[in-house]
Amino acid sequence: MVKMVSEFTEGEHISGQLLVSNAAKCVNNVGAAYMNLDLRDSSGNINGKKWDVGADDESIFEIGTVVYVEGEVLKYKESLQLKILSAKRVPMEDVDIAKFVKQPPVPKEELVRRFNAHVESIKNEDCRKILDYLIKRLSPKLFDYPAAVSVHHDYACGLLMHTVSMADHGVYFAQYYPDIDKDILLTGILLHDMGKTIEFEGPVIFKYSVEGKLLGHISLMMSEIRRAAEGLGIKSEVPMLLEHMVLSHHGSTEFGSPVLPLTKEALLLSLIDNLDSKMVLLEKSLDGVEPGSFTQKIYPLDNRMFYKPKGE
Amino acid sequence: MVKMVSEFTEGEHISGQLLVSNAAKCVNNVGAAYMNLDLRDSSGNINGKKWDVGADDESIFEIGTVVYVEGEVLKYKESLQLKILSAKRVPMEDVDIAKFVKQPPVPKEELVRRFNAHVESIKNEDCRKILDYLIKRLSPKLFDYPAAVSVHHDYACGLLMHTVSMADHGVYFAQYYPDIDKDILLTGILLHDMGKTIEFEGPVIFKYSVEGKLLGHISLMMSEIRRAAEGLGIKSEVPMLLEHMVLSHHGSTEFGSPVLPLTKEALLLSLIDNLDSKMVLLEKSLDGVEPGSFTQKIYPLDNRMFYKPKGE
Amino acid sequence: MVKMVSEFTEGEHISGQLLVSNAAKCVNNVGAAYMNLDLRDSSGNINGKKWDVGADDESIFEIGTVVYVEGEVLKYKESLQLKILSAKRVPMEDVDIAKFVKQPPVPKEELVRRFNAHVESIKNEDCRKILDYLIKRLSPKLFDYPAAVSVHHDYACGLLMHTVSMADHGVYFAQYYPDIDKDILLTGILLHDMGKTIEFEGPVIFKYSVEGKLLGHISLMMSEIRRAAEGLGIKSEVPMLLEHMVLSHHGSTEFGSPVLPLTKEALLLSLIDNLDSKMVLLEKSLDGVEPGSFTQKIYPLDNRMFYKPKGE
Amino acid sequence: MVKMVSEFTEGEHISGQLLVSNAAKCVNNVGAAYMNLDLRDSSGNINGKKWDVGADDESIFEIGTVVYVEGEVLKYKESLQLKILSAKRVPMEDVDIAKFVKQPPVPKEELVRRFNAHVESIKNEDCRKILDYLIKRLSPKLFDYPAAVSVHHDYACGLLMHTVSMADHGVYFAQYYPDIDKDILLTGILLHDMGKTIEFEGPVIFKYSVEGKLLGHISLMMSEIRRAAEGLGIKSEVPMLLEHMVLSHHGSTEFGSPVLPLTKEALLLSLIDNLDSKMVLLEKSLDGVEPGSFTQKIYPLDNRMFYKPKGE
Amino acid sequence: MVKMVSEFTEGEHISGQLLVSNAAKCVNNVGAAYMNLDLRDSSGNINGKKWDVGADDESIFEIGTVVYVEGEVLKYKESLQLKILSAKRVPMEDVDIAKFVKQPPVPKEELVRRFNAHVESIKNEDCRKILDYLIKRLSPKLFDYPAAVSVHHDYACGLLMHTVSMADHGVYFAQYYPDIDKDILLTGILLHDMGKTIEFEGPVIFKYSVEGKLLGHISLMMSEIRRAAEGLGIKSEVPMLLEHMVLSHHGSTEFGSPVLPLTKEALLLSLIDNLDSKMVLLEKSLDGVEPGSFTQKIYPLDNRMFYKPKGE
Amino acid sequence: MVKMVSEFTEGEHISGQLLVSNAAKCVNNVGAAYMNLDLRDSSGNINGKKWDVGADDESIFEIGTVVYVEGEVLKYKESLQLKILSAKRVPMEDVDIAKFVKQPPVPKEELVRRFNAHVESIKNEDCRKILDYLIKRLSPKLFDYPAAVSVHHDYACGLLMHTVSMADHGVYFAQYYPDIDKDILLTGILLHDMGKTIEFEGPVIFKYSVEGKLLGHISLMMSEIRRAAEGLGIKSEVPMLLEHMVLSHHGSTEFGSPVLPLTKEALLLSLIDNLDSKMVLLEKSLDGVEPGSFTQKIYPLDNRMFYKPKGE
Repeated sequence: MVKMVSEFTEGEHISGQLLVSNAAKCVNNVGAAYMNLDLRDSSGNINGKKWDVGADDESIFEIGTVVYVEGEVLKYKESLQLKILSAKRVPMEDVDIAKFVKQPPVPKEELVRRFNAHVESIKNEDCRKILDYLIKRLSPKLFDYPAAVSVHHDYACGLLMHTVSMADHGVYFAQYYPDIDKDILLTGILLHDMGKTIEFEGPVIFKYSVEGKLLGHISLMMSEIRRAAEGLGIKSEVPMLLEHMVLSHHGSTEFGSPVLPLTKEALLLSLIDNLDSKMVLLEKSLDGVEPGSFTQKIYPLDNRMFYKPKGE
Repeated sequence: MVKMVSEFTEGEHISGQLLVSNAAKCVNNVGAAYMNLDLRDSSGNINGKKWDVGADDESIFEIGTVVYVEGEVLKYKESLQLKILSAKRVPMEDVDIAKFVKQPPVPKEELVRRFNAHVESIKNEDCRKILDYLIKRLSPKLFDYPAAVSVHHDYACGLLMHTVSMADHGVYFAQYYPDIDKDILLTGILLHDMGKTIEFEGPVIFKYSVEGKLLGHISLMMSEIRRAAEGLGIKSEVPMLLEHMVLSHHGSTEFGSPVLPLTKEALLLSLIDNLDSKMVLLEKSLDGVEPGSFTQKIYPLDNRMFYKPKGE
Repeated sequence: MVKMVSEFTEGEHISGQLLVSNAAKCVNNVGAAYMNLDLRDSSGNINGKKWDVGADDESIFEIGTVVYVEGEVLKYKESLQLKILSAKRVPMEDVDIAKFVKQPPVPKEELVRRFNAHVESIKNEDCRKILDYLIKRLSPKLFDYPAAVSVHHDYACGLLMHTVSMADHGVYFAQYYPDIDKDILLTGILLHDMGKTIEFEGPVIFKYSVEGKLLGHISLMMSEIRRAAEGLGIKSEVPMLLEHMVLSHHGSTEFGSPVLPLTKEALLLSLIDNLDSKMVLLEKSLDGVEPGSFTQKIYPLDNRMFYKPKGE
Repeated sequence: MVKMVSEFTEGEHISGQLLVSNAAKCVNNVGAAYMNLDLRDSSGNINGKKWDVGADDESIFEIGTVVYVEGEVLKYKESLQLKILSAKRVPMEDVDIAKFVKQPPVPKEELVRRFNAHVESIKNEDCRKILDYLIKRLSPKLFDYPAAVSVHHDYACGLLMHTVSMADHGVYFAQYYPDIDKDILLTGILLHDMGKTIEFEGPVIFKYSVEGKLLGHISLMMSEIRRAAEGLGIKSEVPMLLEHMVLSHHGSTEFGSPVLPLTKEALLLSLIDNLDSKMVLLEKSLDGVEPGSFTQKIYPLDNRMFYKPKGE
Repeated sequence: MVKMVSEFTEGEHISGQLLVSNAAKCVNNVGAAYMNLDLRDSSGNINGKKWDVGADDESIFEIGTVVYVEGEVLKYKESLQLKILSAKRVPMEDVDIAKFVKQPPVPKEELVRRFNAHVESIKNEDCRKILDYLIKRLSPKLFDYPAAVSVHHDYACGLLMHTVSMADHGVYFAQYYPDIDKDILLTGILLHDMGKTIEFEGPVIFKYSVEGKLLGHISLMMSEIRRAAEGLGIKSEVPMLLEHMVLSHHGSTEFGSPVLPLTKEALLLSLIDNLDSKMVLLEKSLDGVEPGSFTQKIYPLDNRMFYKPKGE
Repeated sequence: MVKMVSEFTEGEHISGQLLVSNAAKCVNNVGAAYMNLDLRDSSGNINGKKWDVGADDESIFEIGTVVYVEGEVLKYKESLQLKILSAKRVPMEDVDIAKFVKQPPVPKEELVRRFNAHVESIKNEDCRKILDYLIKRLSPKLFDYPAAVSVHHDYACGLLMHTVSMADHGVYFAQYYPDIDKDILLTGILLHDMGKTIEFEGPVIFKYSVEGKLLGHISLMMSEIRRAAEGLGIKSEVPMLLEHMVLSHHGSTEFGSPVLPLTKEALLLSLIDNLDSKMVLLEKSLDGVEPGSFTQKIYPLDNRMFYKPKGE
């Protein structure tokens, strides 16, 4: 059985695959060289030290590769540290991918099934045409990407998970409040974050692409819808309403929306997005916290520390 | 059949009960006295003019009373105006109350039934004790008050309507997201705005009480829970969690919450409150707007003008 | 010779074409009907009154049409008012268009010539292809539109005037500071506001289109560039850099840019845009102010009142 | 005589009682274990190192206990460090409490006397009843607590010191400005921060209680007054005015006041509170600064560095 | 006895001197000319109408002059209006100045005496030299000017009243808190607002001078101190400390201080200034308000409406 | 040839002059003393260690002096470190000044020539008199100082370089836009930052003077102009306009301007200042960045990371 980084305990001897997320050759204060490493799997990361630097060590510990290491877990200044005894590179084909990408709480197949059911439920033809075209164009990334690099839903299929949850909420509220165009709302929800498939890049370590930084997923997606609608010859207001929902879904110019929600469906979309993002982020932050105590400061929630009740 | 103010049209002769919401004796620019009036029912208001002021007119048109008037509807500077031909006071017992208070979109009996069903669903004993005690103490106002003086849910039973909607949403989300204490969430929702029964006053025209202005419904309600819990001898964390939800439910110090949400249930409550308030407010603002055009500026929604799609 | 509204003086008798920008049939406080009108040409507007309403008057004074009126200029509460003696509609083909649209300080032909010279100076092929394609697609509006509805450059060809001035400044600074890609900068400047041809609409009275309100000229133009580049098969970074310049040119998320300038050329473009807009706006506001006194409050300049020195 | 941490100098041998405020067992970079400690008394704190970890050392250096240590003071990276030679736990009954809690600049007895004199001066009966009830209920903490955890008045009796100073100022201003209700003002001052006795907890190291974090001393104290007034059967406006003063005394919603001052006495209270807090905080920050030089950055004063004049 | 504007009542016939603060010749909606006037004395203002415009009326009602009028007080749209029967100009030498400038609550002689006593109490020679020089240079305006155009202390000698109150408070706090340089504090207080004698201008109606608008009293006064110190050959830190106190006394860059308080005396000065300004402003706003009711919105106090307790 | 710090590479032996910008005697974790040093020249800085501390070492490594060192360059935790083998102080007369101050991109002589040409071009006599007087008074610092301590133009003559660039831009825009008083604009530009010669101090390491911190260069310069104008007997508006330009040139109260630009020339000056500062700062930040990658976060540009295009 594979032991994950989060399960390492002081004093134990471990062996297994680890991703090199950072590496540097250093000299200690008596002049001897050593490798200073940041090693991780999907459960967490650990500082690594290789004290006797061999000739090949710099090429073995290349950033972004996976290595098979043997070592001892020690404690240094209140954190664990891995003293590496031996290491060798793992060829890409032998990498245990599942070990390095966090899995979603619901299996991918289930999420895809629910996503497709939402698509099937849409009756407005213009909505369906645009949706079908863009799903085809942007999958499979659409089904595999995280929803964010380091905040909420930062696991494989996180984007899909977030989208399906929002679609569920959309169906609930479209039935609850009067005069909501369910098809427009649902299509907007399914499309709203698809631009992230262009904004992020990289198979294992997700990061922002240059295009993502300079243009942002919001503007990228708006352009995708506009082009799709033109290509499909759609003349109704539908594309404009969908583009507006994508542009406005962050709900505030401060967070990068160039326009604010100006239709009922756009307002509801932004409120649902806010609600789901915060609930999932808080869920993740409360994970592992003892009843009766507080979380660490949560940056995207105003740096507040949340309380987990005792639940007597 | 009673004709409502919103149905008045230029040129017509009308008669019926109207509430005097403002009145002043004035002199026109050729020196003649007249009464300048603001008259309303639950459907809207109209400027009124009584050109020949009689001896009793000042006492007839007392602010806050209901008068029976006959008059002609004219247009003055693009607005309608009521030229009053005769008027007399209506004794309180003859006032047609239903004409002056906007009715909720769902009958009060139905709302009370749903409210009670939510109460019944709560199993946590401390929650139930506090809830039962406070419902008893603050009803019947609890079931009759509007949720706000001039924003969302500003009709009879608006507070009840808003509370029941939020409770419905609470049940939905408590089932959707893991690890939510449904009883705490639901109790918090049912209690969160009850302080408004102290904050507002007045049988027909609701306005802030002095206590409401100086203390606010949030602090008033927190004190109510604290006293209730002490009187009931409750020793668990429950009262503190409920008090926290009440204090933090505006979600921002800017809007009068002295603390920000620090539990999962408090965060969810504030998000649901925000969502329901905005949706109902927008619904009301879009009412009567032509498809393909925009609303007036909506002050509590950043003064934005919302678009009602053509819905082709 | 045509007398303009701004030249009207108290007591004089006038006749000529005027645009009906607002109209309403009203009743005065002795019960008589009259038409209340807002009449304008490019020099300003005046309140108009037609006291004896004839059968055709409502159809004559249709909002958005031009009428030929005869009347007397009076003073009412410190403003001039036009007492209309007679009026008839002017067929569109007889309308003196030049009277209703403010002319730019430099003739249109001269501006077009300078615009084209800037285009010709660009050597980067990808820039030229995109530029040529979009100029073709968006002219002639491009050469006729104002730069803003009511702020700076609000005259015919204002967009062109603003663009040419910014291009001149761009050439100056590209020579002054090192390492600026002049072709990228110039192309970005020429394109940056072209989206306004979609954002605004209407031949005589410019106003925001629904698309302009819901999407904004920034996102609209970014999509135009993206589609153009794709259609033209351009693979370099050029389209991304141009899209980025368009998206970021307001220089602040508060003013609707979804991303902030992240390249040297984008930063310079936003600084030049800010400088030219403010200088032209101030120029317009100082126009007609006496030396040694202050302007009215200028809303887009923080409501400040500017001083015109005595210039001894 | 007891030597305090602030008096330690490089190279000296010391022995005495120290509070363990932090402790961790670590491994240095040649693999040897050591204890890394944070040791303090009321004068300051020092990093401690125990290099040869004995079997009992982890239990001796328990966080929150007082130990008797012998050691040598060394310099490490510009800070002093205590190399511990021997250590043993001190039983709670032998702890020299006075060494670990900063003493107020005025003796407690003197502060209590002045506090009581202010209470005695109040003639309004409702004020006196509420005050007497709450002093009884919340003392002795009221007389021992600091006014803040780490800002101004952070010493024993700091709360009392701050309250008495503000009461002195209150008396001064009530005589200076007309129409101030001195009894209301003084009672408000004496009560305003009493909620801190609930907000903080712990005999030696003060920290926020869970209730303090979730509810805040402002809301807690408002509830206390409300309940007291109800219990005492008080029907006048007095309790409402006092509650308002407590709720509004931070003077800004940003700092946790749910309502802003709306009476003359509430406004004056918040201004005096602000003045006294800042003056005492600055006094503390300037302490020990050389004439002609600047303090460190003072966080609650906008991170400014203050200047101590040369005083020639 | 002279009847003041604030004492006018509906229906009465009045005669006396009034200041013309605004005037315009208008035409009513039946074509007749009339004068529309704003008339005031120190107690308030009233709208005036002269219905039959005579040949000289435009020259009689010159803005800024004082006229002797006879007229009738009428009510028009809930406000009083003065129907003027006759009017003539009053030569400047016959103007009853005391009627047009609000008098301070303490006689000027008393204020001057207290101001001088504060000056006499200062022992630091550099402080005294600078103070004596500037008092000489800027009096007599110093003793006559209001402290603000329309906010707090807006009466004759308001600047002096405000300065003397602040000096009293300065003496109180310099005795209360340790290590305050009383002479520096007091000198700073006496000087801090003297720049207003340059910022404002005009004998009866105070308004900002061009220099006041373009430079501000803060920078003007700082320059005055600097030049004085240089002329007097002062070499100590004293002038710099005084200049710093003047520059920083608004306590916030938002309110025009280019630097924030960085000495203990500067911080205390800004706190005292804030306290006295707000207390006097509130006192003025509460004047005339019924016990148990609220003031109008007070703009400089965040537009809040303050409550005057019943004072049972 | 002199080797600069930025050219040091791991493993090499170096010798030469270095400035001691920080120094401390420390003890390592086996008890041995060593000197911990921060050494720099104009190209950068390096951490230095002297492991065997000799009797004179503390006096040799005095902060602010230049030492001649021999040592070895090592790598420690990813940074270079200088292991010092020997060191001796360099007498001030032997210091190679050019090595410690960054040189401007244009030679000083050239900058002085262009500055003087701008001065000569001014025809307004009052402007010339004030300018000549102040140049004389504040040179030579005026020609040698950096424009900022650590942001843009932080090299010798940086103030001069910034001023000359702005003057060039001023000439360009004064010709471009109508009705600009070129002499006022140019004089304002030449004067606007001269106060920095008082705000900064120190021959090699520039830092803020006490006067600079307490008063700021803006207020200091305003006073200089005011005194100059008085001394020169100038009666026109010119000094006021120049003072206003100096006071307002930061363009925002947030950045220390007590008044905002209120003349056309003041507005243009602040826009040019903003443009030149940002362009030069960005140029410096992009220096050395690879095409196709991003800069570090740039603090004064909202912490953004800028992109250097590939420039294909």
